[in-house]
Amino acid sequence: MDNNQIRALIGKMTPEEKAGQLTQLPTRLFGNNESELTGTDNRLRITDEEKWLAGSLLGRLDANSMRHIQKENMSRSRLGIPMMFMTDIIHGYRTIFPVPLALSCSFDTSLAWRCARCSAEEGSAAGYQVTFSPMVDLVRDPRWGRVMESFGEDSKLSCEFGRAMVQGYQGNDLKNPSTLAACAKHFVGYGAAEGGRDYNQADLSDYTLYNQYFPSFQGCIVNNVKLVMAAFESVNGIPATANKRFLKKILREELGFNGIIISDWNALPELICHGVAENEKDAAELALKSGIQIEMASDIIFKHIRLILEENPDLEKILDEAVEKVLTLKAELGLFEDPYRGVSRENEQKTLISIEKRRAALIAAQESSVLLKNEGILPLKKDCPIVLTGPYADSGDILGPWSVDGRIEDAVSVLEGLKNRGGKIIDVIQTGSENIAPEMTESILSSAKQADIVLLTLGEPVSWSGEAGSRSLIEIPKDQCKLLQKLHKNGVKTVVLLFNGRPLDLRSILPWADAILEMWFPGTEGGNAAADLVYGNVNPSGHLTMSFPYGSGQIPVYYNRGRTGRPAEYLQSEPRYKSQYLDIPNEPLYSFGFGMSYTEYCVRKNGEIKKKGNGNYVIPIYVSNIGNMDGKIVVQIYIHKIKSIISRPVQELVTWEKILLKAGEERKIEIVLNSDVWNYWIPGEGWTKDIGDYIITASTDSQHKDVKWELTVK
Amino acid sequence: MDNNQIRALIGKMTPEEKAGQLTQLPTRLFGNNESELTGTDNRLRITDEEKWLAGSLLGRLDANSMRHIQKENMSRSRLGIPMMFMTDIIHGYRTIFPVPLALSCSFDTSLAWRCARCSAEEGSAAGYQVTFSPMVDLVRDPRWGRVMESFGEDSKLSCEFGRAMVQGYQGNDLKNPSTLAACAKHFVGYGAAEGGRDYNQADLSDYTLYNQYFPSFQGCIVNNVKLVMAAFESVNGIPATANKRFLKKILREELGFNGIIISDWNALPELICHGVAENEKDAAELALKSGIQIEMASDIIFKHIRLILEENPDLEKILDEAVEKVLTLKAELGLFEDPYRGVSRENEQKTLISIEKRRAALIAAQESSVLLKNEGILPLKKDCPIVLTGPYADSGDILGPWSVDGRIEDAVSVLEGLKNRGGKIIDVIQTGSENIAPEMTESILSSAKQADIVLLTLGEPVSWSGEAGSRSLIEIPKDQCKLLQKLHKNGVKTVVLLFNGRPLDLRSILPWADAILEMWFPGTEGGNAAADLVYGNVNPSGHLTMSFPYGSGQIPVYYNRGRTGRPAEYLQSEPRYKSQYLDIPNEPLYSFGFGMSYTEYCVRKNGEIKKKGNGNYVIPIYVSNIGNMDGKIVVQIYIHKIKSIISRPVQELVTWEKILLKAGEERKIEIVLNSDVWNYWIPGEGWTKDIGDYIITASTDSQHKDVKWELTVK
Repeated sequence: MDNNQIRALIGKMTPEEKAGQLTQLPTRLFGNNESELTGTDNRLRITDEEKWLAGSLLGRLDANSMRHIQKENMSRSRLGIPMMFMTDIIHGYRTIFPVPLALSCSFDTSLAWRCARCSAEEGSAAGYQVTFSPMVDLVRDPRWGRVMESFGEDSKLSCEFGRAMVQGYQGNDLKNPSTLAACAKHFVGYGAAEGGRDYNQADLSDYTLYNQYFPSFQGCIVNNVKLVMAAFESVNGIPATANKRFLKKILREELGFNGIIISDWNALPELICHGVAENEKDAAELALKSGIQIEMASDIIFKHIRLILEENPDLEKILDEAVEKVLTLKAELGLFEDPYRGVSRENEQKTLISIEKRRAALIAAQESSVLLKNEGILPLKKDCPIVLTGPYADSGDILGPWSVDGRIEDAVSVLEGLKNRGGKIIDVIQTGSENIAPEMTESILSSAKQADIVLLTLGEPVSWSGEAGSRSLIEIPKDQCKLLQKLHKNGVKTVVLLFNGRPLDLRSILPWADAILEMWFPGTEGGNAAADLVYGNVNPSGHLTMSFPYGSGQIPVYYNRGRTGRPAEYLQSEPRYKSQYLDIPNEPLYSFGFGMSYTEYCVRKNGEIKKKGNGNYVIPIYVSNIGNMDGKIVVQIYIHKIKSIISRPVQELVTWEKILLKAGEERKIEIVLNSDVWNYWIPGEGWTKDIGDYIITASTDSQHKDVKWELTVK
Repeated sequence: MDNNQIRALIGKMTPEEKAGQLTQLPTRLFGNNESELTGTDNRLRITDEEKWLAGSLLGRLDANSMRHIQKENMSRSRLGIPMMFMTDIIHGYRTIFPVPLALSCSFDTSLAWRCARCSAEEGSAAGYQVTFSPMVDLVRDPRWGRVMESFGEDSKLSCEFGRAMVQGYQGNDLKNPSTLAACAKHFVGYGAAEGGRDYNQADLSDYTLYNQYFPSFQGCIVNNVKLVMAAFESVNGIPATANKRFLKKILREELGFNGIIISDWNALPELICHGVAENEKDAAELALKSGIQIEMASDIIFKHIRLILEENPDLEKILDEAVEKVLTLKAELGLFEDPYRGVSRENEQKTLISIEKRRAALIAAQESSVLLKNEGILPLKKDCPIVLTGPYADSGDILGPWSVDGRIEDAVSVLEGLKNRGGKIIDVIQTGSENIAPEMTESILSSAKQADIVLLTLGEPVSWSGEAGSRSLIEIPKDQCKLLQKLHKNGVKTVVLLFNGRPLDLRSILPWADAILEMWFPGTEGGNAAADLVYGNVNPSGHLTMSFPYGSGQIPVYYNRGRTGRPAEYLQSEPRYKSQYLDIPNEPLYSFGFGMSYTEYCVRKNGEIKKKGNGNYVIPIYVSNIGNMDGKIVVQIYIHKIKSIISRPVQELVTWEKILLKAGEERKIEIVLNSDVWNYWIPGEGWTKDIGDYIITASTDSQHKDVKWELTVK
């Protein structure tokens, strides 16, 4: 179906049929009765007859029910318009990959691509055509539960991981039935929710929006992302769902987005709660005018379209444009040719959780894990007698939030992983998460006497993070910390495997653990990955993409912080009047970019930075593995602009490279700086090539900057 | 000296003489060797000859040294230009009043006026003509140490208290030698320093700047404040010291400020650290161009003026304008007629810490204190046997930060206050603040056996708040909490008097104290005020002007928070997907506007709101004292706009009234709403009369809203 045919089709549609295309209803209304994915208990007044006018559905589905619903729809649709099926496939559909925050710690965008590719194969086989992913929200507040769904605190990383996910979901042709259309979300500033309280308002200057928040969306748009979701929250007093400047001027005109703008769950009626609409008709009209083109999980455009058009005949144009976007995507997906897009029960069964997908999930989990502490205890020998304990000792509940269709029974627990790798497990004592009885602690202590090591799986319950998982304290439950302290006090050597969806205040375990391996929520193959890392089959290579603070009192803390006139690091001799806390350091407990390994790396200069003919620069570096184990180094390139029109951050990540180095190997590498790394958005001037003097550094974290170059950019 | 004479004088000045007028040097360079008030160790390269060209000095002074310096200056000044003397008189000069945050809790601006009036009398007698006060920075982050210097989290309160202070300092005629010129600070957004870390950058939208941050400065400007100080920090990437939009477009053009714009301490050279200037000449030029007219405690304009003018001849106009502002203020102060402004040692001695001033400070401290908890234990009878303990039991160190010229030996300690009021003190055990030895706890416990009550003076050491007093945790030192808990455990009744400069997380004392009286840092008469409140000579009437959070993890929390689409308070039946923390409530431990009394009040409607001919509205209310003691009720009027173009805060304080009610008395009152309360700054529209439906409430705190009216504003 081409553009002309689409326009002709629109010409035949009634206002209700048009509004129907803008309406997205939950699949539960169509007989899929499993519990909701998310969202408030929204009141839908659409009738059983009317619901078949909906342009798209969201929620639980499988190949059979998709065929069933689509069949009924095609038999009822006056103009033969297929439905689209959407859902939240965030880090895998049935085969679950590590949560996105973990995935970003791999510093390897090809893993994100692979995760999206597998998700698309599985999700499309289950009957979906669209996923609400990637979330490319910048995050600086670990109290917010959805940080687990982000790529961390850096806009460049968010951009590159977002782009890779879009490419992985969409491929090069949406007609290929194993693809999914992607949706970049949430436009914009959702991660800046005040106090980390989900859905809360944000206050952001243009300076910060342009330099920190827009680039990740820009990246997805460059990669042709098909949908963008408007954020729930108000930014500077205006709900994103009703923000014409954001959705039209910036997203459409400045960022050049050409796809569908969809609301978040029930966000249209919620404009009344925001205090910008008086009633549902008002809210529907405001959202339409502001640029919303699909209303998720509510029906107020549909319910009021006649009255809205009566009062604003010129809105028909906006309505038609929205319908055109929706129908165009359906056409691009091939739904007009085959409303089922080849979906079959047989293909679904063959596709879900295949061996190749498990293999991809395993590699992603291995590469996402971050070694935070190691007092020479890791890796363990396979014959090292271990007592395994903690809430995640033998639990499949390691998939993490937003793994709706993942199954705990598919997941490999840590115990299974250790067994699979031939570990010597003396005892396994599964504990609770928030309550560990003293008798249980005693029995762990007693078991520990027969073992060399206690492997402690600690962390947050899954429900503590994810959507609406806001917490004022970012701490490990106290009983878990007490157990570790008790073991330490009794002279037991401990290795901690951490399972969590957000950066945590680790001061409560750090002094007492002999090693800490951050596993995040690692997905279906988590236990195997943990075992591979513990036994050194794989050398940890992940690096943090979000700072781990000294508790909530240090929030926000992030590596690319703004400068001050009284930086504590330059005013060593000044006792008081500088920018610092009196009770804790300025730097976080673990910084962005930090990650240990079982080997040791070295980064050295190999001459000066050279400019190439195409305007790019090349940084010549020696990297070497000076330890005894093969491993992957992540070389991170940061820039520091000495002076500018505005006060730029103290450092900014511009590129990185992850390189496998054999034990003892040294390599010459050249890292390329594209000419666009000098661009910066300056108030009153817009995007500008920020010429002048820079300091360029190469390092394996954001704090140690011994290898540096001076560079004048003209 | 009139304008023409000033201009003629400028015509005769060399560039160095002009730049000198823009230079403010510390008095230590002129023989006053006492330690600095504040500030980093700035390098001054000005020579002993050149320093006499400085237009103003800041720092320690007294009548004699002022006369001495001015005499020398007049003998050296080629054109006979007197020096101006400035300093930080923040909450009293020698007679110290409660810290400003405390003062605002009185909800009585006449006390702020009185504090400023007394300060002006004392400060001018000591040789000063200008004070760097009031600080009208809006504050929402108690980690920031300077919250003690603010009037709290509400812009209307900050505005009214700021105006009263300006009026108190300046009076109606600066020729009156007992006045001081005032300086509103810090323009703008200094209180929004990220993470509460002093001097740190801030990110603020225009929406927030206009509605929350500018009004308090506007109020001071309406009251003819003579100086405005630029803030230290960067806002949206631009240091306030170099922010032409803030200083020229907004402060001058929009807010109509006509006085002197002064930098903060050493802020000009610090532009290099901010990364917006390459060297000192660059920084000086940038600040000049941006609107700075006096350079505090550095000399870079002076040192580079020849080169700057050589390169930018048109800057001479900006320079001359600045000199004109400085000389005009000197003329307004009468310094050309009498460079000593009548200063004498005799008058100084007569003026400082007089009985009337002590009386004013006593009343201010009584009215600033906030009763937070009372399990029927307060007020105490005078014959009630008391053990007095804690770090502030017999300490004069209750003046608080920024009481540079206050003297601890002038201060009345709690012990002295109790004795002055005839209290029965069985024992006094002064403890440390951070360390209380177990033996001391034992001896307190043992003494407590002979008493009915232990009066515990708890709180923060003074140095924990004030400038650069940033803390990630807002807690009372642990040993103090343990002492209280121990007393409680042993069945001892306790009354806690709190001394502190910021809202604290009181969860560590709340369950164990039988009463808590927030004294803040109450100033010279603190001990007498405490005794008056404890014994019920005065009924507590203060109300919080800054929320007391559930710890740092809840920051920011403030009463006029923005709305969300999923407010927890409306979604009672929704278990998860709403704007909330999972581990603590959304509301603070103690809310803005909260304050208890020894009596009970009642507020009732007395009919509907009426519109007057002048556009004002009148709210008719019955207020009554239904308890057994006279007291002052603070009736607070909040508005809630039901629907607007933007999402307005959930509630906004618009006016208040403090009324003395005798025990059993009922009064009809009418509270006036001025027509300007409907004005709101809306992005893209500017200041707008926000017509439509409002809910108006009258209450004695920000959380209980039983008394309400609906009002349609046209």
